[in-house]
Formats: sequence, C-alpha cells, structure tokens
Amino acid sequence: MQITILGGGGFLGRKLAHRLAADGALDGQAITGLTLFDLAAPAPVEAPFAVRCLGGNIADAEAAKAAVPPGTDVVVHLAAVVSAQAEADFDLGLTVNLHGTLAVLQACRALPKPPRVVFTSSVASFSGGQEARLEDDARQMPGNSYGAEKAAAELLLQDASRRGMLDAVSLRLPTVIIRPGRPNKAASSFVSAILREPLLGLETELPVPEEFALWICSPRRAVDWFLHAMAMDTAPLGLDRGINPPGRSATVGKMLSALEAVAGPEARARVKPVPDAAIEAIVGTWPASFTAERARRLHGFSEQESLEEIVEAFIADDLAATRAERGL
Amino acid sequence: MQITILGGGGFLGRKLAHRLAADGALDGQAITGLTLFDLAAPAPVEAPFAVRCLGGNIADAEAAKAAVPPGTDVVVHLAAVVSAQAEADFDLGLTVNLHGTLAVLQACRALPKPPRVVFTSSVASFSGGQEARLEDDARQMPGNSYGAEKAAAELLLQDASRRGMLDAVSLRLPTVIIRPGRPNKAASSFVSAILREPLLGLETELPVPEEFALWICSPRRAVDWFLHAMAMDTAPLGLDRGINPPGRSATVGKMLSALEAVAGPEARARVKPVPDAAIEAIVGTWPASFTAERARRLHGFSEQESLEEIVEAFIADDLAATRAERGL
Ligand SMILES: NC(=O)c1ccc[n+]([C@@H]2O[C@H](COP(=O)([O-])OP(=O)(O)OC[C@H]3O[C@@H](n4cnc5c(N)ncnc54)[C@H](O)[C@@H]3O)[C@@H](O)[C@H]2O)c1
Ligand SMILES: NC(=O)c1ccc[n+]([C@@H]2O[C@H](COP(=O)([O-])OP(=O)(O)OC[C@H]3O[C@@H](n4cnc5c(N)ncnc54)[C@H](O)[C@@H]3O)[C@@H](O)[C@H]2O)c1
Repeated sequence: MQITILGGGGFLGRKLAHRLAADGALDGQAITGLTLFDLAAPAPVEAPFAVRCLGGNIADAEAAKAAVPPGTDVVVHLAAVVSAQAEADFDLGLTVNLHGTLAVLQACRALPKPPRVVFTSSVASFSGGQEARLEDDARQMPGNSYGAEKAAAELLLQDASRRGMLDAVSLRLPTVIIRPGRPNKAASSFVSAILREPLLGLETELPVPEEFALWICSPRRAVDWFLHAMAMDTAPLGLDRGINPPGRSATVGKMLSALEAVAGPEARARVKPVPDAAIEAIVGTWPASFTAERARRLHGFSEQESLEEIVEAFIADDLAATRAERGL
Repeated sequence: MQITILGGGGFLGRKLAHRLAADGALDGQAITGLTLFDLAAPAPVEAPFAVRCLGGNIADAEAAKAAVPPGTDVVVHLAAVVSAQAEADFDLGLTVNLHGTLAVLQACRALPKPPRVVFTSSVASFSGGQEARLEDDARQMPGNSYGAEKAAAELLLQDASRRGMLDAVSLRLPTVIIRPGRPNKAASSFVSAILREPLLGLETELPVPEEFALWICSPRRAVDWFLHAMAMDTAPLGLDRGINPPGRSATVGKMLSALEAVAGPEARARVKPVPDAAIEAIVGTWPASFTAERARRLHGFSEQESLEEIVEAFIADDLAATRAERGL
C-alpha cells in the first residue's frame, strides 16, 4: 500500500506520518511506501517502509503529479492556506485551496486505479455561529474565503468520486487543539494558544469572551479519523462524500478550567482577555456544534477525550518538542 | 448604465438583449451601452444605445476583461457548457463553468466599482428527484458535473460578494421551456423538444414516462427574473446570494395536454415514447419542485403563466424564427 500525504510537513501531516510509521500498516495491509509533500521537502520520518520527501507547490500540475505517482493507493490532502491568511490574501487562498485541490484531482485521475482521497474540509465552511447545532444535511454557507474554497473543493471531489476518477472522503474538521509550535495564521490560532502558551510559562491573549463556544477535536482523534477515512468502505456514502466527524462543543471557559485542573491557577492566570473584533468576526460565524449523527452511524469515527485528557496529551506528545523548537 | 451579457449569443442572452433594446432602460435608468460576448461575436441587436459585439473564450482572462470594461455596472453571466456536454467532456465543463466564472470574478474585481453580477445556476445543482419539494435552505448535492461546477461557482461568487469585489445574485434556473431552434446538448433538451418539434410538424422522442415531473419556467419569466436581479436591492440577501425563483412543477403529461389544447391531438401524436436510461439518470436526480418562499418574500420575481400560455408564447415569439433557422 502506497500513501501520499500532501501538506505532510504541517501539524497534522507530521502526526499522521509518525503514526503510519509506528503502525507499519493500514487496516491490516502493509504500507510499502510513503510520500511526504509540502512547500519545502518535509524532514524524513523513521519508518519500516520507504519514505520519499518532496518539496513543491500543490497548485502546480507537475508537482502534484510527482507527489501522486502511479501505484498510489491513498492520498491524504492536507495542503492548505489557513483561514486568516486566505482572508488576508484572496488570490493565494484561491490558488492553494481551490486550484491546488483541482491539481490533486487531475493527478489522481491520471492514475491507472482511482485512489482514495482523504480531504480536510473545515467547520469554517459552515455558518450558524454560537447558537447553531448543525444537522448533517446543513448546507455550507461560509462566511470566509477559506471556507468557501474548502466547500467548493468538496463539490468537485464529490463529483470526481461519482465519476470514478477518485474515491473521496471529505472530513469537515473541527478546530484541532492543542496545536504545538508557534501561533499560526488561522483565525482560530488563539484556541490552542490559550492552552499551549500558559503550559510554556508564557502569557497569551484571549480575543473572545469566556462563554464563547467552539467545535473542537484533539490531534489524536483527528489522526484516528484520517486512518479510518483512508480505509473505510465508501459505498454507504453514496453521492455525499462530506462527513462532520464527532468533535466536541466546548466554551473557552471550560477549556481554561481544564488547563487549571491540569496545570494550576497560575497557568490560567497567564491568559489575558483582550477582545479582538476581527478574530471574533471570523470565528463568530462558525457553528459551535454539530449533531455528527452520520459519522456516528457509519462507525469508526472515534469520540473525543475529556478536555483535561486533551491538555495532558499535549504535555505528553508535544510540550518538549515545542519548547525545543521555540528555544524555551 | 453599462451592461454586459456573457453568453450573449445564446438562447436567454439573445432574449435579454432584445428586451433591453426594447426597454432602453433598466429600473428607470437609461442604458448607455451593451456588450454582447460569446464564443463567436453575437449578431448585433437594434437598440437605442451602443451595442458592442465581442467573440472570445470566457475562461481566457484577457477575453473576460475585454468583455467587462471599466464603467460596467451590470454583468449577466450566462456563458456555460450545458449539462449533457459537461457530463461528456469533464475538462471542458470545468474550464468554462468553473474557471470561466473565476475569470469573470477577476475581471469584475478589477473594475473601479464592484458591478452587479447576475449568475445563472441551475436546478441541476440539487438532488432529490421526483419526490422532492426543496426548501430554500436545501443544500446543493449535485448528481452531475454541470451542477457541481455551478454550485462551486456560486460559492465563489458569494464569497466575492461578501468581500465587496462584486455584488452577485445567483438564480438557480428551472428548465426553461420552450427553447427555440434545434435540440441542444442539455440533458433536458427533450422537455422543449416534445413541445417545439410537434409545433414544427416534426416527430420527436420522449425519453421519460408521462408522469415524470420537472421544475420549469418560461423564457419570458426568466428574462423578467434577470431584469429584477440586475437592479434589485441585494442588502436583504446578506451572505446568501442564491435564489430559487418561482418556477412551476409540471409533469410531461400536463405539458403534452397543454400542447394538445393549443395545437390539437395531431400535434401530441407526434411525440413518441422512447425510454432513454442515460437521460433519465441525469434529469431523474433533479428535484421536481421547490417551495421558492424566499424569492416570493423578496418580491419582484414573477410567477409562471399557465402551460397553455407558455405554448402560445412560443408560437408568438419564436415559431417563425425557428422555422426560418431550420429551413422548414
Ligand atoms: N488544524 C486545524 O484546526 C484544522 C481545522 C480544520 C481544518 N483543517 C485542515 O486540515 C489540514 C491540515 O491542517 P494543519 O493544522 O496540519 O495545517 P498546517 O498549516 O499545519 O499544514 C498545512 C501544510 O500545507 C502546506 N502548504 C501550504 N501551501 C502549500 C502549497 N501551495 N503547496 C504545498 N503545501 C502547501 C503548509 O506548508 C503546511 O505544512 C488543512 O487542510 C487545514 O485546512 C485544520
Ligand atoms: N435554458 C435552461 O433551461 C437553463 C436552465 C438552468 C440554467 N441555465 C443556465 O442559464 C444560462 C443561459 O442558458 P441558455 O439556455 O441561454 O444557454 P445557451 O447554451 O443557449 O447559451 C450559453 C451561451 O454560452 C456560450 N458559451 C459556451 N462556452 C463559452 C465560452 N467558453 N466562452 C464564451 N461563451 C461561451 C455558448 O456559445 C452559448 O451561446 C446558462 O448558464 C445555463 O447553464 C439554463
């Protein structure tokens, strides 16, 4: 089984690569090769199979083809320009998030056997805001360019699946916490920062009120979902390739209480409320909850741990590396 | 007021151009110039204002810019590859229906003042089939590439509207009957053919059962909708730029009865049932009905005439020209 991870140098791509290396197999089938593709060639991963690391722009047809060579069984397409950046640079977002996905589509279609494509769409492709608890058939009415590009890309991958050019599963990921490393250009960057920075001993700003709720998931569960989506039977999906996986709805206040429970009141005290209307304008349109009934009915999409466990998992998996990366 | 019609040489583009020429004004404002753009430069239209006829490919950035010169107030974007053709040639459909609309977006965004853009999406961007009566918030789950491209283009125009690059209204048109001229490459071509061909004295085939229902509208009402969408206040639309206008749900049997009422039993007898699974597979996924409540609440989107009146309107407006065009 040959696998490609596009955006394989990013947060979730890296975690997935390490998990595949540790497992050596996917759904009982031995992995024979892994291609990691990102803007700059990702650092190699120690694995019991060949790992190929490629740099390139996913929106470039030739680069996309090189990343998805003949024999590829599964493509996990994570390469993207995130929300605040796509909002700040319309053309860049369109190029990477829409044209990039079309380049992936064309590369997959050129393969002799249509590969499974796991695409990461986002909660940001929906509207509804704080009051929402969206059903699975809710329409995507994005209030930001990133979400519009993700939803448009979903439509095209769904159509390509119907035509048999590839076999897509589009996971509308919740906000994944806790992201390691540095703050990034996602509008939701603060959701990880309010937990990560205090654990590093640093102060950080909270741009929304404590009652503000978000639909979140942990990186461990996101990787579990990828593994399931990479191997699941797609026949029951029919035309509809979009899945709202079972995240968790949590207020910022509850997240900070979990931080306090794990790391003490001094950690929580490092979070300073500094309202930011621009951030709230973007994340305020994202729905705070989903029913995720379809994902649960399909089975195999695992449920979230408690918020305390999510904080503890970050400490176990990522704190030391984040400290090292940031020279702390 | 300067207006551009993209796809201005087509069925509805031509009708709209003639109507603008007859009115000389839009919503009380004098029209000062009209650009008609199509693959081949459309024939000029006699009008009380300057008419510019341009040929080019809408997916070509330079051609799109030339079609939408500075000073353009309204763009009616009708240029498209229709359903059966987009299904037969995936790349052509993607190029014209998706990349073409992106070229229109970029051309509009380059203007000093964001123009109104009236986009024609389609009932084919929805699923649901014969049993459906879709609410306004139904999601678009297209069962054909044409519909997927239209729905993706809607998302991008909606986002561009939110960003103030242009000001879009996307009309999800029903199947427009009776189309003059020759049968075309739309999967729904037969819906017009079963009325038009008998009126020309010709036999024609009916690929679906008589109980088969479709969501239809007349060309006169489609043009009325365009005029309304070109001038309406878009503030009440908010984020959601998609409108399901008030078509009519009608079975093929009712259409044939209207034909018989207007043109006699000998006309109806020219329609021969010849089931075609490929055609039914495409049109069978389109919803047969919509509530169209939002369009009615917004006012200004006029209701359909009776089926008999639609047949009579074709005889009055298009029969002679169709005879001449086809040498009958
Ligand atoms: N992390 C989240 O909270 C979250 C939530 C919803 C959806 N998602 C989606 O999940 C995916 C993975 O998220 P992540 O947090 O790992 O993101 P990330 O930003 O850490 O990783 C994305 C990777 O894509 C790469 N990339 C960007 N432009 C590229 C280009 N033109 N060519 C090649 N590579 C390019 C980046 O270099 C980066 O390494 C993304 O598609 C993201 O939109 C993430
Ligand atoms: N007529 C219907 O029943 C119906 C129903 C739903 C939606 N629509 C939509 O309404 C619009 C108008 O419909 P119509 O019936 O007048 O279609 P039509 O096919 O008669 O007109 C479309 C025009 O677009 C032109 N065109 C195609 N590719 C082009 C390109 N690359 N560059 C420039 N021009 C190009 C064609 O030459 C044609 O003249 C279309 O967008 C169609 O998808 C029509």
